[in-house]
Amino acid sequence: MHLSPLLTDLYELTMLAGYLEEGMADKPAVFDLYFRTNPFAGGYAVFAGLEPALDCLENLHFTPEEIDYLGSLGLFKPRFLAFLRTFRFRGTIKAPPEGTVVFANEPLLTVSGALAEVQLVETVLLNIINFQTLVATKAARICHAAAGAEVIEFGLRRAQGPDGGLSASRAACVGGVKGTSNVLAGMTYGLPVRGTHAHSWVQSFADELTAFRAYADAFPDSSVLLVDTYDTLKSGVPNAINVARELREKGHELRGIRLDSGDLAYLSREARQMLDAAGFPEVRILASNELDEQVIDSIRDEGGRVDIYGVGTKLATAAGTGGVALGGVYKLVAIDGQPKMKTTSDPAKATLPGSKQVLRAVSPGGAYIQDLVCLAGEALAGGMTVYDPTNPLRQTTLPADVRLVDLRLTVMAQGQRTLAPEPIDRMAERCRREMDLLPQGCRRFVNPHHYKVSISPQLKELRCTLAQAVTSGRKD
Amino acid sequence: MHLSPLLTDLYELTMLAGYLEEGMADKPAVFDLYFRTNPFAGGYAVFAGLEPALDCLENLHFTPEEIDYLGSLGLFKPRFLAFLRTFRFRGTIKAPPEGTVVFANEPLLTVSGALAEVQLVETVLLNIINFQTLVATKAARICHAAAGAEVIEFGLRRAQGPDGGLSASRAACVGGVKGTSNVLAGMTYGLPVRGTHAHSWVQSFADELTAFRAYADAFPDSSVLLVDTYDTLKSGVPNAINVARELREKGHELRGIRLDSGDLAYLSREARQMLDAAGFPEVRILASNELDEQVIDSIRDEGGRVDIYGVGTKLATAAGTGGVALGGVYKLVAIDGQPKMKTTSDPAKATLPGSKQVLRAVSPGGAYIQDLVCLAGEALAGGMTVYDPTNPLRQTTLPADVRLVDLRLTVMAQGQRTLAPEPIDRMAERCRREMDLLPQGCRRFVNPHHYKVSISPQLKELRCTLAQAVTSGRKD
Repeated sequence: MHLSPLLTDLYELTMLAGYLEEGMADKPAVFDLYFRTNPFAGGYAVFAGLEPALDCLENLHFTPEEIDYLGSLGLFKPRFLAFLRTFRFRGTIKAPPEGTVVFANEPLLTVSGALAEVQLVETVLLNIINFQTLVATKAARICHAAAGAEVIEFGLRRAQGPDGGLSASRAACVGGVKGTSNVLAGMTYGLPVRGTHAHSWVQSFADELTAFRAYADAFPDSSVLLVDTYDTLKSGVPNAINVARELREKGHELRGIRLDSGDLAYLSREARQMLDAAGFPEVRILASNELDEQVIDSIRDEGGRVDIYGVGTKLATAAGTGGVALGGVYKLVAIDGQPKMKTTSDPAKATLPGSKQVLRAVSPGGAYIQDLVCLAGEALAGGMTVYDPTNPLRQTTLPADVRLVDLRLTVMAQGQRTLAPEPIDRMAERCRREMDLLPQGCRRFVNPHHYKVSISPQLKELRCTLAQAVTSGRKD
Repeated sequence: MHLSPLLTDLYELTMLAGYLEEGMADKPAVFDLYFRTNPFAGGYAVFAGLEPALDCLENLHFTPEEIDYLGSLGLFKPRFLAFLRTFRFRGTIKAPPEGTVVFANEPLLTVSGALAEVQLVETVLLNIINFQTLVATKAARICHAAAGAEVIEFGLRRAQGPDGGLSASRAACVGGVKGTSNVLAGMTYGLPVRGTHAHSWVQSFADELTAFRAYADAFPDSSVLLVDTYDTLKSGVPNAINVARELREKGHELRGIRLDSGDLAYLSREARQMLDAAGFPEVRILASNELDEQVIDSIRDEGGRVDIYGVGTKLATAAGTGGVALGGVYKLVAIDGQPKMKTTSDPAKATLPGSKQVLRAVSPGGAYIQDLVCLAGEALAGGMTVYDPTNPLRQTTLPADVRLVDLRLTVMAQGQRTLAPEPIDRMAERCRREMDLLPQGCRRFVNPHHYKVSISPQLKELRCTLAQAVTSGRKD
């Protein structure tokens, strides 16, 4: 994906020009990218967007047209424009692999390198990681609600812009969705593409049966018939069964039917019975119509017999309480080798200074206990006391037999990727596996268990020292 | 903008293949694009996204790689793939110009042409028009709240994907926003770009005053200083005033200060007083931090002295009740010259059949009275009775001196644009002018006045005839 380096806030460029002017452009600096609240008032998030972000950084360069445009703004000096001509991102990045289950207040990306370079990429990294992590999380919640039934993404028509749809399809698959209606996403990311037909197909024919026959003729082995244009149980399902019989006589099988309105729990139970009674237990039932994790939950609660959920708007736009946008931030944590911290009246908003590691504390059986943020190089072990970053009085002791796993890898060094891109189904598999290892209460939709992210003794110490050194009040 | 024709739901392609197989691909068909509820529980919407949509349709074609990909799916026959090789959109489109104030249940786009062509473009038209209309509407609401103060869009970092940000910047300007931080949007759409600096700039220097001086040195005529890194009133504003004095001695003027946290109403009043007392009444105050129309309203209510509002996430993602996604639909209204209607148990969801016109009833003084949907060619005039489309018992009589204005133009004929593209500031000017002509209650945020969209006698008659002809129940 070639993204223009102008896909950035103007202030990144003015700051870059300023740092150049001050002779500070090459100072070594470290930024952390993280978010402060789990999305959807939930118990976790699913990290996504890394590959597109690395792609973008690896290819980051200014074209002559882009530099001419910047010159035309009357803001920048010729020396700065000349500097941009050879600008490349040569920083180093640590990050978890995509599909990793992550939590509020732990560094996801740590970006280190020359101040000018690591500052410039703030906006584009936030844009990509914020949105894809948000959608992957929504997808994981929806798949959890579907409890093994397949989920397909159908949201393009109401997504936020053409690429809102494209990024959303990719991220949804990282979170566990099995396919998308978005054909371009299929081609771009190798995702399975899926679809049925619209009501307008049925309306374009003299009657429903003729329309179903025509569709089944055109796609004898992959037809999913939309049965609610007139009356689902009196017309749609019986006509679909007729067509299924005709297909079988010709050596084909109807793939499925789609319910798109009404009481989906009730209609799916009735349709299942009718299909089974007619000898079509393999015909699958797909349901759609403003679905999200809560609606799917209640369909299952009421004994709905849905095999495939088609989820559109609410997945592609990550709608819902605590959704729509992930409030990821990108904060300076060290410059010139010196740790930096922003203190604030609200301890929840104080940053974690310095270059750090993120560790996951795992039980001997493999279950996740909590995450830990410590200084780079700090040695942690079972039996140690660790601290709540937002409340210095709260502390906890790590179990003696704990295993500590580094959550992140160096994914880019000196501007070059260090690892081969991963296929999306491997990311999805990671997500599924990690979801199973979470404390069960974290997956709950209402009042989920709060998974701990603690800080280490040395990091706590450094925060105290820096807080004492600062005399004035502040904001985040 | 070249958008791939694969930016579509798979079912558009399977239906197209089916129509080709049935010999129906060339049947003349008419679709209407409209939405059923004004976004944000508001009293109106601002139409946007037309230019990008027309651009996309004019350039619509399948590349050999795209056709190979479709072939690889194992779904399509060689005859269909061959058909795609020369596929072009040659339809005709009526639409209002961008920036027009529009309402639920009136056709925005009417797309007519060969069934295969007008069906295929459903998804991409909905994607572009839904999102841009939603953001333009949000922008108009925010600008209305700002009551003449400038509004700037800052949302890229939390927008829904790279293009979510780009489309949002464009649409925000259609709705009245005066500039964006998104540099690529500036270059692509000729929008004014604006910015300040980040907290990390201040943190990168030994102290705030040094950081302000360095920024002012680099941008002596355009600096807006972020004053809340440490303490807005005790440190930030006094340091900014110092730098303003130093700039003035060198023949320059500080452009502004930015408040990004705390009580923005209070801080802006205090900062205004300090700046005025120091001899800087021209230094402008910019406020940001999770703003939307409601927050801006309350800042103004409390006597805030904000000159420029920087609005980010909530504008770029069109957040808020009734926001996030506009539920635009694309419905078949005629095929082969025959009007088509979907009836339903809910009269609000029944479609308006046939090729239609949309007229605006305007008072002699120019104020908007109501909109009217009638059949193409039907003559309406003052004194006539018109009907509520959702409640056949409600009717109203048009004033005798009413003027009826066609809301839409033919913007594309046989796949070619009929009008030159309009500059975005002309669209914004139209939006501002039309907002003023609305009944005042329509602009209210809470329980707005419901602007009438009535149907004509002949359209009412046609609906009755078609409803009687249909015997079975249905859904939309």
